[in-house]
Amino acid sequence: MNIRTFTLTLACLGAGFMAFAQQKITQTSPDKSIVLEVETTKDGAPAYSITHQGTKILALSRLGLVTREANYASGMKLDTFYTGTQDYTWQTVWGEEESIRDHHNLLKTIWKTSKGQSIAIQFRVFNNAVGFRYELPGDSTVVILDEKTEFALTADHTTWWAPSDWDSNEHTYSNTKISQIDATKHLTDIEPFNQFIPDVRAVQTPVVMKMANGVHVAIAEAALVDYGALHLKADREKFRFSAFVVPTADSTVKSVNKLPFHTPWRTVLINANAGGLLTNRTILNLNEPCPLEGDVSWIKPQKYVGIWWEMHVGKGSWDYQKDGVPHGKHAANTQNVKKYIDFAAKYGFDGVLVEGWNKGWEAWFNTMKPEVFDFTDPYPDYNMSELAAYAKSKKVRIIMHHETSAAVPSYERQMDDAYAYMRRFGMNSVKTGYVGYIQPKGEWHDGQRMVNHFNEVARRTYLNQIMVDMHEPVRPSGLHRTWPNYMASEAARGMEYNAWSKGNAPSHVITLPFTRLLGGPMDYTPGIFETRMNTYDPKKKEIIQSTVANQLALYVTMYSPLQMAADLPENYEKRLDAFQFIRDVPVDWSETRVLNAEIGDFLTVARRERGKNNWFIGSITDETARTLDITLDFLQAGKKYEATIYADGKNAHYQDNPYPVEIRKVQVTKGNKLALKLAAGGGCAIAIRQL
Amino acid sequence: MNIRTFTLTLACLGAGFMAFAQQKITQTSPDKSIVLEVETTKDGAPAYSITHQGTKILALSRLGLVTREANYASGMKLDTFYTGTQDYTWQTVWGEEESIRDHHNLLKTIWKTSKGQSIAIQFRVFNNAVGFRYELPGDSTVVILDEKTEFALTADHTTWWAPSDWDSNEHTYSNTKISQIDATKHLTDIEPFNQFIPDVRAVQTPVVMKMANGVHVAIAEAALVDYGALHLKADREKFRFSAFVVPTADSTVKSVNKLPFHTPWRTVLINANAGGLLTNRTILNLNEPCPLEGDVSWIKPQKYVGIWWEMHVGKGSWDYQKDGVPHGKHAANTQNVKKYIDFAAKYGFDGVLVEGWNKGWEAWFNTMKPEVFDFTDPYPDYNMSELAAYAKSKKVRIIMHHETSAAVPSYERQMDDAYAYMRRFGMNSVKTGYVGYIQPKGEWHDGQRMVNHFNEVARRTYLNQIMVDMHEPVRPSGLHRTWPNYMASEAARGMEYNAWSKGNAPSHVITLPFTRLLGGPMDYTPGIFETRMNTYDPKKKEIIQSTVANQLALYVTMYSPLQMAADLPENYEKRLDAFQFIRDVPVDWSETRVLNAEIGDFLTVARRERGKNNWFIGSITDETARTLDITLDFLQAGKKYEATIYADGKNAHYQDNPYPVEIRKVQVTKGNKLALKLAAGGGCAIAIRQL
Repeated sequence: MNIRTFTLTLACLGAGFMAFAQQKITQTSPDKSIVLEVETTKDGAPAYSITHQGTKILALSRLGLVTREANYASGMKLDTFYTGTQDYTWQTVWGEEESIRDHHNLLKTIWKTSKGQSIAIQFRVFNNAVGFRYELPGDSTVVILDEKTEFALTADHTTWWAPSDWDSNEHTYSNTKISQIDATKHLTDIEPFNQFIPDVRAVQTPVVMKMANGVHVAIAEAALVDYGALHLKADREKFRFSAFVVPTADSTVKSVNKLPFHTPWRTVLINANAGGLLTNRTILNLNEPCPLEGDVSWIKPQKYVGIWWEMHVGKGSWDYQKDGVPHGKHAANTQNVKKYIDFAAKYGFDGVLVEGWNKGWEAWFNTMKPEVFDFTDPYPDYNMSELAAYAKSKKVRIIMHHETSAAVPSYERQMDDAYAYMRRFGMNSVKTGYVGYIQPKGEWHDGQRMVNHFNEVARRTYLNQIMVDMHEPVRPSGLHRTWPNYMASEAARGMEYNAWSKGNAPSHVITLPFTRLLGGPMDYTPGIFETRMNTYDPKKKEIIQSTVANQLALYVTMYSPLQMAADLPENYEKRLDAFQFIRDVPVDWSETRVLNAEIGDFLTVARRERGKNNWFIGSITDETARTLDITLDFLQAGKKYEATIYADGKNAHYQDNPYPVEIRKVQVTKGNKLALKLAAGGGCAIAIRQL
Repeated sequence: MNIRTFTLTLACLGAGFMAFAQQKITQTSPDKSIVLEVETTKDGAPAYSITHQGTKILALSRLGLVTREANYASGMKLDTFYTGTQDYTWQTVWGEEESIRDHHNLLKTIWKTSKGQSIAIQFRVFNNAVGFRYELPGDSTVVILDEKTEFALTADHTTWWAPSDWDSNEHTYSNTKISQIDATKHLTDIEPFNQFIPDVRAVQTPVVMKMANGVHVAIAEAALVDYGALHLKADREKFRFSAFVVPTADSTVKSVNKLPFHTPWRTVLINANAGGLLTNRTILNLNEPCPLEGDVSWIKPQKYVGIWWEMHVGKGSWDYQKDGVPHGKHAANTQNVKKYIDFAAKYGFDGVLVEGWNKGWEAWFNTMKPEVFDFTDPYPDYNMSELAAYAKSKKVRIIMHHETSAAVPSYERQMDDAYAYMRRFGMNSVKTGYVGYIQPKGEWHDGQRMVNHFNEVARRTYLNQIMVDMHEPVRPSGLHRTWPNYMASEAARGMEYNAWSKGNAPSHVITLPFTRLLGGPMDYTPGIFETRMNTYDPKKKEIIQSTVANQLALYVTMYSPLQMAADLPENYEKRLDAFQFIRDVPVDWSETRVLNAEIGDFLTVARRERGKNNWFIGSITDETARTLDITLDFLQAGKKYEATIYADGKNAHYQDNPYPVEIRKVQVTKGNKLALKLAAGGGCAIAIRQL
């Protein structure tokens, strides 16, 4: 993050009193593969189209904002435009790559209404994407009533979409044609908490499409700051998406902003194949670097265990008592936490998450109480002081848990004290939660008020040198570049659904990386070895639709700098051979290669451990067993490596035989080929160490 | 601080409907040496008197509070009383002793007005002190108009006093009879910043007296929280002090408090000799332990150097420019700071204070501007990022400086960001300053508003794991027990006055420990080797009225867990032999002995290095040369020690020959005698290491 080369050539090509009304302005990507055209519609709207290697990606699509004072969506004239080029490489604090190149051509267009009111639209054209945003000048306040951005696709593409929900990001993804988008036919086997689907033909971003020629297009946003989340309404006849921004509590208002203001970036990612989307870094490039200089050595990717899964499977509970009487099932008790600390220390984990440590869980859920939790008040059987000393002696950090119960003003009031409490007890990571109807009442989970809250949590934890893992935030948009302490979030349907719903289909974990994860890491919490819930509670019929080898592979396919080994310690100690992969797999990378990918079908990713010459591969498949051939062409020539392969064992199958893992070691060199045999719902994990 | 034995026996002796009106209630100290009597005056005021070993210390003295709703100063009846005993020992995080015993007998008296309004007065009688406070019950708000506490001395004692000043604690101390207290005849050669002396016969606390029998009495306060500072009006005829609490901006109101409320403790310290006052721990015992559990390992006593003295002597400046043009004298520039970091690293100092690092010094002084400094905005020649990395590589910490210019609301608004900025750049200590007229306008430096501010700074820095050194706070009252990160304060006339006033007389540093330092450590900034200001600037006639050996001895006599080596590095490098004592002297102690003392005349203190068997002795005298005989009876029997003695050299004299220091090493054992020859304005420092 500290080393940066930066070149910006900004040339004013169109300033002056030229008439652009009938003119098309063109900007291309640096490699000329993408051509952006900007023009003015007959009724005076800004509009754009995108071509990729001669194929139209977006037909002419309208742009515009409507504010309380001005209509920037029609009746405008192009006043001026500028072009430029930016090319620099920046270092990540952590990530899938050590450094990332940001190379794009810029086009800034400035438009005026007939009353002389001004708006700029800035476009950036990358070799694999186009980004643009609206920029409003001034020094007062603006009330934004609507955004009129369109994305006019050229055909009825295959689409992976989740329904627009103003209160939940925990839906599964459907795979249909654009013409078939319909939330009423969408699988929602369990109601996501507090869902509100305002339009059954609207979808969340990122939404991903595959064109007939195999090109993959994703519509996403970057740097969601001070604005509602971007959802999209589908025109099922014209294959056209239009912006459907989550409003404020006043449904007629999208946002209220201080001027000058710019919207988040709207991005169109364009890759020749599905795998390309996973190494497309445009969303990060469109986020700002951290505005604060200074030491970032306290930010460290980590693996953790924790008191969490045992509550989901019914072995323990978050709450301490019933009707005022301790019921004896409270999991976050001193003795149990020590057990996890011992386990973490023994097997090399950095942290121990403890959920249910603080008072309030007896009535935390959807009560709409203004005050639910006190973030400095542990249950009586949780000795914070003793545990802090114990963890320190074992060189393990306890990870704090702040379930806010969506009582957001209460959390905002307590933040400073809560972070100071963490410091005093040696904690520097926090997992936050927002389960329940949002307070202040009337606000939506993904509206401007909450977006600002989540960003403020990222900033305030940064100022407090605390790493944060947000569960139930707005889905990420690359802001972990700006706040590199914002390690991960859930913001999607995670592992927990497997414990108490119909579960996540095998394809789910092969869809998430191409959709939800485009914006940032997910704390999916993989690594469940005991995939049958009835082993914990005979009455529970739920299963995880995954083999154990598939669980291992998720540590590579599901990128996060924060990875949990989510199962119970006793389940790992029964299978230390397979557990070795979880112990060995890093959480920070120097480079990433996608070896093969079809969204929802299969995915194989190889990553090089940061600063080292070891590679780790994860490969997963859906309910179809398959063999994937890979070539180790990424290894360094002339070096010898040992690969430890964790493959699905004989007759493994996610439905009736999930457990067998076959582990073998082979010596490999650059160019060797491996055939990965994946069971139905299976996977393969490989650790390759240089000898 | 963590180990505590605690016994409290609280016996209700007087509850019920007894008539106490004419009755005296007696409580004694655990060793019976002090007798407290409490009675009711004829007009219904609570009153008390104190006897020490048969000698009256205080004659009958009235007590009482006046609030907007009630007169608790007359017309009352004693309703109930309780007695009890408390005896426990607590561990200090740092200090003059490793552990401190709090052993006292308690008397709680409850009084009622004729309207049934209730007030309690709680007394604690120690073997060497009496403390008491007012306690008001309720759950609403109280407006306190006046406090009617009296201290009726029994004769016209010799008294060391500083004038009551609502805006400054930087006066010298005068030594007169009570009958001669008069601020108009008090030496004020330089106006303390923003002084306001409301009554020429009033004094600050602590005020100290010596009785004819040699007994020393100090009137002080402990735990000054949510109230104005206690000053005292002198009745010069009756030798009687009465409370004169610094008011709020509304001069008719002392404080506004939420109920229940108790005032700070008023204490009468009673010791057989002057030295006893210095090991009287009553003020600490009357302060509360830290209310927050958790790790305190980040709190570490330290020695530091810094960019500070060179500004006082005119070599450099705090400000960067004049009329917008850099003038080249700005001391806090990257290169100069690196020089200090190098020096600190080479000679084993923990920190480097940097004053003048941030923008605003061009017009910081008494401007009454609401915004003067930004605490995250360095001058252009101060590269925070580079210096943070440099300091880290040298294992030295930069000490932050927050001069607030007394623009208190501005500082309160910026605190969180300022502390986060420190964290990012590896700083965990801050020196604060409050030079100028207090904002909000109308408030006094030592009134309730500012007392609350200073305490909030202590709390907020604690929460941020930052150690704080407050210059210009209200003078301390033992709150460093509650907030052990509140390391030290100036709050008195420190070293700096020597650089630009008639200076501090030799007696000044022999008066401070018995007065100002009773409430807490002082960052006096000793260690000036070049005591002639004309070596820096030929026009400057100021001198430090001290020999170099005296400067060394101050590291022991002037207790602080934070000690500066205040002179310029080049002056130390010229005299590395004498400098060795500053390098060796610890800043944290296991035990402290006062070997001899007369206030303002001479003082010899021995302290044992915390956790080790090494002793350090400091001995200082006033303008009179003298030889002090000491006996090393505190050394451990049967052990051999080497003493390195830094004595005034031949013909040393503070006025015309301050520099000679004679250094010699001798072997010593328990019981050995040493004759310390102190020059006029001289001193002697001794480092004794076990062999």
